[in-house]
Amino acid sequence: MAKKNKTAITPTREEDYSQWYQEVVKASDLAENSPVRGCMVIKPWGYALWENIMHDMDAMFKETGVRNAYFPLFIPLSYLEKEAEHVDGFAKECAVVTHHKLEKGKDGKLVPAGELAEPLIVRPTSETIIGESMSKWTSSYRDLPILLNQWANVVRWEMRTRMFLRTSEFLWQEGHTAHATKVEAQERTSQMLDIYAEFVEKHLAMPVIRGQKTESERFPGADDTICIEAMMQDKRALQAGTSHFLGQNFAKGSDIKFQNEEGQEAYAWTTSWGTSTRMIGGMIMVHSDDDGLIVPPRVAPAHVVIMPIIKKGGDNTQVIESANLLKKALKANSFHGRKVEVEIDSRDIGGARGWDWVKKGIPVRIELGPRDIANNCVFMARRDTNEKKSMDRDDFINNICDILDNIQDSLFQRALQFREDHTFSIDSKEEFYALFKKAKGYENGAFVNSHWCGSRECEEKIKKDLSVTIRCIPFDSPMEEGTCICCGNASSKRVLFAKAY
Amino acid sequence: MAKKNKTAITPTREEDYSQWYQEVVKASDLAENSPVRGCMVIKPWGYALWENIMHDMDAMFKETGVRNAYFPLFIPLSYLEKEAEHVDGFAKECAVVTHHKLEKGKDGKLVPAGELAEPLIVRPTSETIIGESMSKWTSSYRDLPILLNQWANVVRWEMRTRMFLRTSEFLWQEGHTAHATKVEAQERTSQMLDIYAEFVEKHLAMPVIRGQKTESERFPGADDTICIEAMMQDKRALQAGTSHFLGQNFAKGSDIKFQNEEGQEAYAWTTSWGTSTRMIGGMIMVHSDDDGLIVPPRVAPAHVVIMPIIKKGGDNTQVIESANLLKKALKANSFHGRKVEVEIDSRDIGGARGWDWVKKGIPVRIELGPRDIANNCVFMARRDTNEKKSMDRDDFINNICDILDNIQDSLFQRALQFREDHTFSIDSKEEFYALFKKAKGYENGAFVNSHWCGSRECEEKIKKDLSVTIRCIPFDSPMEEGTCICCGNASSKRVLFAKAY
Repeated sequence: MAKKNKTAITPTREEDYSQWYQEVVKASDLAENSPVRGCMVIKPWGYALWENIMHDMDAMFKETGVRNAYFPLFIPLSYLEKEAEHVDGFAKECAVVTHHKLEKGKDGKLVPAGELAEPLIVRPTSETIIGESMSKWTSSYRDLPILLNQWANVVRWEMRTRMFLRTSEFLWQEGHTAHATKVEAQERTSQMLDIYAEFVEKHLAMPVIRGQKTESERFPGADDTICIEAMMQDKRALQAGTSHFLGQNFAKGSDIKFQNEEGQEAYAWTTSWGTSTRMIGGMIMVHSDDDGLIVPPRVAPAHVVIMPIIKKGGDNTQVIESANLLKKALKANSFHGRKVEVEIDSRDIGGARGWDWVKKGIPVRIELGPRDIANNCVFMARRDTNEKKSMDRDDFINNICDILDNIQDSLFQRALQFREDHTFSIDSKEEFYALFKKAKGYENGAFVNSHWCGSRECEEKIKKDLSVTIRCIPFDSPMEEGTCICCGNASSKRVLFAKAY
Repeated sequence: MAKKNKTAITPTREEDYSQWYQEVVKASDLAENSPVRGCMVIKPWGYALWENIMHDMDAMFKETGVRNAYFPLFIPLSYLEKEAEHVDGFAKECAVVTHHKLEKGKDGKLVPAGELAEPLIVRPTSETIIGESMSKWTSSYRDLPILLNQWANVVRWEMRTRMFLRTSEFLWQEGHTAHATKVEAQERTSQMLDIYAEFVEKHLAMPVIRGQKTESERFPGADDTICIEAMMQDKRALQAGTSHFLGQNFAKGSDIKFQNEEGQEAYAWTTSWGTSTRMIGGMIMVHSDDDGLIVPPRVAPAHVVIMPIIKKGGDNTQVIESANLLKKALKANSFHGRKVEVEIDSRDIGGARGWDWVKKGIPVRIELGPRDIANNCVFMARRDTNEKKSMDRDDFINNICDILDNIQDSLFQRALQFREDHTFSIDSKEEFYALFKKAKGYENGAFVNSHWCGSRECEEKIKKDLSVTIRCIPFDSPMEEGTCICCGNASSKRVLFAKAY
């Protein structure tokens, strides 16, 4: 053991949570900062994770009739002007293309040339251009519903960036649907949030709270925004997905009209919903520890690493062969529709080899030496519990999916327990303020369910005083008489307060 | 039959091949031009095709150890200056980001603001930035090989665009690998071209000719460029994929160095290889006819459409139910690792319904009426041969994969026959010039195997006189004595001449 009394990641979560996060990303080989401001390079281990996320979510979308399409990277500037909300929302942070070539200047250096008549914006979302297409494609009720999704890169010029959590370019999916009736659009809004919640809980092993945003936290132009919120280990909330019911607002802005069954012209009812590589940031912060990343098996790029014990200068044929056979036997198993993925790491680099895989968060590590082979055993270590034990080789092969399911489940249960341990119902303003005032670093507060009168003033005051926001009005928050945590006026429901990413 | 003596697409291939192509893309619902200059909207039917292509190719890449990663959309201008070839190649046609926000100008209109210290280029390829990462990631021979691929959007500011064939933004994959030895890099270059050839022939049903580019057609900076070339129905060639052996040139430019097993510092040997949505353009032009698109089953978004015969005002429960059962039975089959995909189209719009699916190129159409159900039959039409017949329902279900394989094969054979019918060996300069001089429109010449002395002058002269280029020096071109088709000097090999896209 190379580093017995030390952790693999410095600083630890307690010492500096924010720096710990950056170090985990780096040590796990998920991604690194790129030479381009605010952008990241997603390395193979990180991108494979994203591929698994895309694959699984995409299948869930398609199951409900959604189809993928692709819209242009560029948005004409005039499109942004069409929607007042867009101007306010995105104009302050967008990449603007003004020229279409480079020429050598007087000093021989390249300079932009070929100025465009109309500048183009690199899409911060494809909303406006998808709206235009929907308008073109919709003439009769028979053309509805339109159920579209796009997996793509988008750009928002962020000043302070953090890998996965906030980057100037990020990868995401945005869904846009248009319906003939209000009810159908509302149902779709809920259906997509349910898919997000199911995916995040079952695949990323992150428990979430489903709820409605308050009016001030709503997506601009939406009649209703619903979301899922997860607790990070510093007790801050991360919004892991949102779904918007846009009423007829967006259809009016984009002129999405159709003739209904009665032959009358009507505006469509639309929805939109999105998730991004930010989910990976959330996953890291929910599960990882002071030794590095922990990846839930259902999205892990690989499930098992086999590390044959190599003798320098010796004959390692048998152990390498045995490792290959073990890999083959494991890969014959299907884990939730994906092959069990196995890496063999034969590098002769001492204890650093095992630590590399700890830091990468692979669910199961196997050591395999001549004695194990003689006894038909494998020496197994679980990343989640750090449990290590010798196992019968055949038992291991036959039970690999159960082991992985058990890891998946234990990660979820641990995160759920953590959230429950740090969620409080508070009715006293003093207590509420005291809790959040001392919140900092790793101890960034808690999830607090408190009564709120519904006024924007109280919401604003708490935000201003404590940097605490109403994350959502949880769907399962019961009707209950109480008094607003801020002003003391009557309230009928508790809402979820927390500091947020 | 709504349009018995007419074709679904106007004009026909013979009347105006170029316009026919645009109409096929439109009528098939694959894509449409977007309001953004030179960019297209890829509609669900077209994007599903691309998804299938990505899925299948990606599996082939990964089988050889390649891993996907993601690099930033933006390239700092200074990176382009580092590589002289890049300046010449891409500077004339790139999107330049110069500002990072918009502000309201004096007249209230939005104008670019927040000028960047260094302009950013929207990636025309990620080559330079991947090179920089490889340089960072490579210190020892143990770090090699690095086998990377990226699926992404890229931008080249094209002045004349055609959907799929040439658009300012397009989707592609670019592979980049770095190796410790020359031989390994050369083998990888060939291996990837073999994968392209196998994919294009087996999945897109397009026969290709594999060969080497001449020095003047080589990728800038490559020691060797190899390619696959396919014949379109106008007898022009389309390059469907290229693979480049870059020697140590790229490693020297990007400083990709490593310590070899002997402890000496050495430059890596690199390769790169790419294919794009252009392949879809090729697929359209190889297989489609005057009634619209024909999609090879292995990449088809859906394989079968079931059209229940609906009686206006009648009770259609039975026929709808029977269609649903048929769909379910068909979907239980796996066709080359993908479910058999089935659409049900119950629209009551007369003959236009069938024509819609003809134009979309779905491999098999099924009509299902009460009489078919009573007789346990289906009425089947094949898109490739236009064969129509009644079939026993169970036979159809049990043989669906064979039927699809047969369609796939017949499309390939037909294209191969077509290419053979339009490929000639020509030894007389007069004949060569006569053939290509009369080439225009649909009759755009032929594939011509002729001797070439190897001089750039002859290559240039033919290009200038006839707009005909050497597509490649086919790998299977035998050594054979002859005289150059242009200058009459001695030659030892025939090369492939054609007009090209």
